[in-house]
Amino acid sequence: MSRRNYLLSQIRIVFEKYGYQPIETPGMENLSVLMGKYGDEGDQLLYKILNSGNYLKDVKEEDYSLDSKKLLHKISEKGLRYDLTVPFARYVAQNQNDIELPFKRYQIQPVWRADRPQKGRYREFLQCDADVVGSNSPLNEAEIISMISEIFRNLKIKGYTIRLNHRKILGILSKMAGKEDAEGVFCTILDKLDKIGTEKVREELISSGFDSNKLDIVLPTLTSEGGEDNASKLIQLTTHFSNEQTDTSGIENLEEILGMVDKMKVDSKVVVDYSLARGLSYYTGAIIEVTIDDNSMGSLSGGGRYDNLTGVFGVPGIPGVGFSLGIDRIYEVMSQRGLFNQVALETTKVLLVTFDSDSFDFAIPIVSSIRAEGISAELYPHQAKMKKQMNYANRKNIPFVLFIGSEEISTGLLTLKTMESGSQKKLSLDDIIDQLKG
Amino acid sequence: MSRRNYLLSQIRIVFEKYGYQPIETPGMENLSVLMGKYGDEGDQLLYKILNSGNYLKDVKEEDYSLDSKKLLHKISEKGLRYDLTVPFARYVAQNQNDIELPFKRYQIQPVWRADRPQKGRYREFLQCDADVVGSNSPLNEAEIISMISEIFRNLKIKGYTIRLNHRKILGILSKMAGKEDAEGVFCTILDKLDKIGTEKVREELISSGFDSNKLDIVLPTLTSEGGEDNASKLIQLTTHFSNEQTDTSGIENLEEILGMVDKMKVDSKVVVDYSLARGLSYYTGAIIEVTIDDNSMGSLSGGGRYDNLTGVFGVPGIPGVGFSLGIDRIYEVMSQRGLFNQVALETTKVLLVTFDSDSFDFAIPIVSSIRAEGISAELYPHQAKMKKQMNYANRKNIPFVLFIGSEEISTGLLTLKTMESGSQKKLSLDDIIDQLKG
Repeated sequence: MSRRNYLLSQIRIVFEKYGYQPIETPGMENLSVLMGKYGDEGDQLLYKILNSGNYLKDVKEEDYSLDSKKLLHKISEKGLRYDLTVPFARYVAQNQNDIELPFKRYQIQPVWRADRPQKGRYREFLQCDADVVGSNSPLNEAEIISMISEIFRNLKIKGYTIRLNHRKILGILSKMAGKEDAEGVFCTILDKLDKIGTEKVREELISSGFDSNKLDIVLPTLTSEGGEDNASKLIQLTTHFSNEQTDTSGIENLEEILGMVDKMKVDSKVVVDYSLARGLSYYTGAIIEVTIDDNSMGSLSGGGRYDNLTGVFGVPGIPGVGFSLGIDRIYEVMSQRGLFNQVALETTKVLLVTFDSDSFDFAIPIVSSIRAEGISAELYPHQAKMKKQMNYANRKNIPFVLFIGSEEISTGLLTLKTMESGSQKKLSLDDIIDQLKG
Repeated sequence: MSRRNYLLSQIRIVFEKYGYQPIETPGMENLSVLMGKYGDEGDQLLYKILNSGNYLKDVKEEDYSLDSKKLLHKISEKGLRYDLTVPFARYVAQNQNDIELPFKRYQIQPVWRADRPQKGRYREFLQCDADVVGSNSPLNEAEIISMISEIFRNLKIKGYTIRLNHRKILGILSKMAGKEDAEGVFCTILDKLDKIGTEKVREELISSGFDSNKLDIVLPTLTSEGGEDNASKLIQLTTHFSNEQTDTSGIENLEEILGMVDKMKVDSKVVVDYSLARGLSYYTGAIIEVTIDDNSMGSLSGGGRYDNLTGVFGVPGIPGVGFSLGIDRIYEVMSQRGLFNQVALETTKVLLVTFDSDSFDFAIPIVSSIRAEGISAELYPHQAKMKKQMNYANRKNIPFVLFIGSEEISTGLLTLKTMESGSQKKLSLDDIIDQLKG
């Protein structure tokens, strides 16, 4: 918990520095809000809540012949939050008159999925999203890149790349690959590139109706790793698109974003990667993904621009852009690299160890005085052997122990032990407080 | 959210200063953990979750004739957390070998109850609990009183009383009122004293089998408000109990707790109140409740000592003491008294307002520089009328606005407006940063 709290607090600090405000939505939503938003599999994986009281009261005898899907709507009206995007869209649609646009929010809450639990996949897990709705400015995308960079810098995570692409570019490349209006399929297949490789992607595209000859031209563009810088890549594609007399607005949008990122002096590696697809179909503009360079983990963060967050709730025309941080994966990377060891996690700073009821009584006002200075402190609460009290300090990673016995009572000097070094010093309470503060 | 976050952060700071560690438990628990722990009404108010997939697969045709209660166990195995105590007990029982006793934890999480929503009562609400298990020392009770005092002081809430009583005292008074082993009934009825008054309590006690004559002696003891101090009250009751040759250990326990509270220099009003009962039956020792002196609200906090938190999960003999803070009520008191107005709630510190694309471009590195100093800042993300940008600052309670136009670009001096006073100054970026930090 203290590691996770540290991680989340670092993220919150950055979100708030960029003007994002926290919101929270209820764990339960109406099933009508949730169903049909995550595909058939998502509908299956939603946790549904039985109506309260006599949930069978609207069920007639003939209804029992229904299958579980059809009976569902008679016995359940609510479900557990499955992600943070749909509840946010519901929230924006419902509060549209009270929300000042552009509206920047972040949300860190658990979501629930009725999946088979396995390593790294839990039925309840934390999601962390930040979105701006009501602004088309590329500044928002640039600030998202800047925030990611700042969060990773604060967490001391190195060796990662922020990849950037644009759905309009992918749409055009999809068309150039020989199939109209098939951007969705194109992106879904392209999204598997990391897992199955170029050859398999090519095969799948062809069997989905894309043109083999045209793919010979398009695929190298998509997958060229190249040593080129972003500017050259964008110029190259502009030339390519101009020859085809097609829309270059996606490229220009990326140029604007990257120009702003430069002005912000973002020091992360930001790479235009035309093969970046992001599976989710609702993106319509720039898309962003963060990967670890040693390939040890899937993406740590991803996001992009969408046109119509709230349309499904009857409020069309609110564009937005947002991103998610994969808390569990970031935590995993930090653990693997020992990055939590470098930070002072919240724990009690000093344990007061006493030897009899006199020293215990003597210690009570002392622990209060230490706390009054804002230092977390504990007095072991009952008589126990020293070994037991020291074990307690060790198990809780308490860095200092203060011994109070008859000698300490008579001299007024207390013995402070630094647990890491094992060194002990006799000091006055004022000096001890100074040392604990330092 | 920012008010609530402020409130919770103040509480967390105190908990951690006293060595309490945060834990969180999942939103879902097995129904076997939850059912039967909160009485019949509680079982009704638990939210139950449909088994995932085909939840009807274990239901046979003859089961459909069952009522909803009996069918439940065939279609639902899990429920939503109803309070924080039962999940904590489950957690301690399950992790008993990994937990170092005494174990001090706090937990701030939502709970769900399938109640009819009404003012101040929601189906999802936040609970905030702190408990120590594995220690019988009265230091724990004294520290709870000290924590309550410190939390309320930090929140600037005045005019409240911390009431203290002991279940052993109530048990003896109950016996003295003429009925053996009826402490539970006695406390339940006594708990209504505030609502229905002494006379009605007396009537209910008599109709529950207590002795009318004996109540004439016992009730005045219970309800004597008196101007007496705690010490006199305790001495008086000791004399009373000694005459009856009965157990005075409850009184002695309160004396110990109050002695420690004195040593800690707790400056809140702490009052022994023999009429304090706390409805919950699982308390066995000291009980504590915090009320607002103007009677405008029910209790803001309550708790007490219990003997056997984990017994129901097969791990007997772990005593504990804990308390809850009523977040919603504390929030309400603070709102009524305007206490949130006195604190600087998290919001963006400064909004950069620009007038054209040149000043917008000019502002991008400036907003980055301000953020690099740890100051939260926003640049209005697209071209808009000044009025619209100023509205945005007002709605978000942003205290400073920085105007950037052609003059600012040419002179390098930026115009900083303090929203509250309306005053404007032309300053260099360095001076602006100094002012925003101050």
